[in-house]
Amino acid sequence: MLLIKTNRDILLKPLQTVTGIVERRQTLPILSNVLIRQNQEKTSFLTTDLEIQIKTEAAENLSLQKDFAFTVSAKKLQDILRSLPSDIEITLTRKDDHLLVKSHKSAFNLQILPAEDFPEVTEESESDNAVTLKQKEFKDLLHLVQFAVAQQDIRYYLNGLLLLIDGKQLISVGTDGHRLAYVSTGLDKAQKKQEVILPRKAVFELSKLLHDSEDPIKIEYFQNKVRFSFSDITLISKIIDGKFPDYNRVIPTRNNKLFEINRLVFLQALQRVSILSNQSDKFRGVRLIVNKDNLRIICKNNEQEEAEEELEINYQDDPVDISLNITYLMDLLNNVTSETVQCAFENANSSVLMTVPGNEIFKYIVMPMRI
Amino acid sequence: MLLIKTNRDILLKPLQTVTGIVERRQTLPILSNVLIRQNQEKTSFLTTDLEIQIKTEAAENLSLQKDFAFTVSAKKLQDILRSLPSDIEITLTRKDDHLLVKSHKSAFNLQILPAEDFPEVTEESESDNAVTLKQKEFKDLLHLVQFAVAQQDIRYYLNGLLLLIDGKQLISVGTDGHRLAYVSTGLDKAQKKQEVILPRKAVFELSKLLHDSEDPIKIEYFQNKVRFSFSDITLISKIIDGKFPDYNRVIPTRNNKLFEINRLVFLQALQRVSILSNQSDKFRGVRLIVNKDNLRIICKNNEQEEAEEELEINYQDDPVDISLNITYLMDLLNNVTSETVQCAFENANSSVLMTVPGNEIFKYIVMPMRI
Repeated sequence: MLLIKTNRDILLKPLQTVTGIVERRQTLPILSNVLIRQNQEKTSFLTTDLEIQIKTEAAENLSLQKDFAFTVSAKKLQDILRSLPSDIEITLTRKDDHLLVKSHKSAFNLQILPAEDFPEVTEESESDNAVTLKQKEFKDLLHLVQFAVAQQDIRYYLNGLLLLIDGKQLISVGTDGHRLAYVSTGLDKAQKKQEVILPRKAVFELSKLLHDSEDPIKIEYFQNKVRFSFSDITLISKIIDGKFPDYNRVIPTRNNKLFEINRLVFLQALQRVSILSNQSDKFRGVRLIVNKDNLRIICKNNEQEEAEEELEINYQDDPVDISLNITYLMDLLNNVTSETVQCAFENANSSVLMTVPGNEIFKYIVMPMRI
Repeated sequence: MLLIKTNRDILLKPLQTVTGIVERRQTLPILSNVLIRQNQEKTSFLTTDLEIQIKTEAAENLSLQKDFAFTVSAKKLQDILRSLPSDIEITLTRKDDHLLVKSHKSAFNLQILPAEDFPEVTEESESDNAVTLKQKEFKDLLHLVQFAVAQQDIRYYLNGLLLLIDGKQLISVGTDGHRLAYVSTGLDKAQKKQEVILPRKAVFELSKLLHDSEDPIKIEYFQNKVRFSFSDITLISKIIDGKFPDYNRVIPTRNNKLFEINRLVFLQALQRVSILSNQSDKFRGVRLIVNKDNLRIICKNNEQEEAEEELEINYQDDPVDISLNITYLMDLLNNVTSETVQCAFENANSSVLMTVPGNEIFKYIVMPMRI
């Protein structure tokens, strides 16, 4: 039975939207598949990894049939479409438990698994709470903190990003226990307080799918999941059950010694000295010596090698001599786009507060280390 | 003591030439280093991995000193120079067992190991035999067969390329036992017969360093090594001690059934069907069914999935139905640049001979496989 007849690009677009979360190797074979479903005039595409589910619709009706549903390998179908010429006509025909993908003189016979076996999340209609903001604002909220989120930490609650509604503010926080990134954005009106930890993978997937647009994204909260609706996409993610650290206790308030520095000049100097740090170490230390009018940056390795850079700064406070993880500094400088950054110190044993001049809502805190 | 004062680009160029063979992790620390030596007006750079040695000279004299030699980490020095702005002034100063690399407000203190400890190959002046040809010709000779050379095969003599002087011909052959690439080039005059197996790494390094130029490369043969001299570079490689298979017995002579096909059309069709081959298999089979006027290309995987492409060809002989390793076919099509290729068959159980129309000196042979 002929199910779908369309051109390659129209079919490829929704497929690419949902394929990002599909892992190549699955314990459950059906998780490699995309659920393609026709419901009246609409053709929808759905994937899941049991933690995140993404659903989208084709821009136009792809089928003459009114009703069908099947699942087929998402990556293989995507690879096939990608390998075919742009805008060529494609047909998808079902033959028993196989799907025949045809285009001109190319034919691909793919295995189908039944739609009934697909572990789709049943969508609840009534959310506990909901908030709507611009896609662009939410994208920034994720982008500015996601690099600080922990990876595979045994403190499982750190492997996600805190998303917090506090009055008229939406706040996001990422931390791995040694550094923390915080950013907030204003909401139209005050909302019920709501705190969730969004898994790392969902954060990166959302970040990829969101556009720098004024169009809205709606965030709805349920018992143990969150639903994000934007453009033609619905992404549902489980939330991490745990207690996120109190970020207010981490953000320093007495860091009065400060200087501003050109971001790229600072980054390039750090990249150069890092050549003589211990490349294989997880924590690579760098020493910053802040003096009146100059900043010295020093790295050493176990082979008695040493690199030093000197940069001019405008600094009028007492000298500070502090050691930090160089990767944490470079992470920040690589992930913001401002011309300058500001570094604020209390003393050599306290956290450094880094901010972006002109941006009051973003804070980055790095704890000192002993080297 | 100030050893070198020059600009960054002049120092970086010879360093990049020799650094390619240096492995990041070494059992012998000095093998990570480059030997920098001043001899009268010349500054030379030398590296080795005990199998290959590369030496080059800076384009101009870099030193006010007449005589010195030291070794320092090749990759670190290269990384430092790369990270500094183009054309900036650099000084290299020796302080005991350290080398201070300075540039403006950047300083790098690198560990020196004594030049006397460096395992430099003593160069013999008298070669057993020598041949000179154009760089461009030799580069082609390597490029057209290097992809067929085995990798880490227990038949160690396959992990290199056969380089053979036979009368007025220089021949190169690469094989992994299942496919073979052969190419030859004419020499100015007949030479003494000479057969060496050049290690894979030396082949790839030469291929990278050679230019598409009319300038000469001189190849000199010694007891158990070969010396290549071209541009400002001398590369000495050990040769593999072993008996290379007799390629003449592999090259088929009765492959009279043939067709010519557009290279990119054939390659893209193979790439598409390969999506439904067993991705994890080392040997991924493809079935070619050659009929009058059409070629069918079929791949299957263990999940009962199948891809088929049909291409038009001009073929007038008996049908052939043969299975081949798809990677071997794509390797050839990716490594030649001609518009078309020619495939010649004897029968389904014999090797396929692939050639490039208009090029009489290149042959590629693929053995059939059972799938």
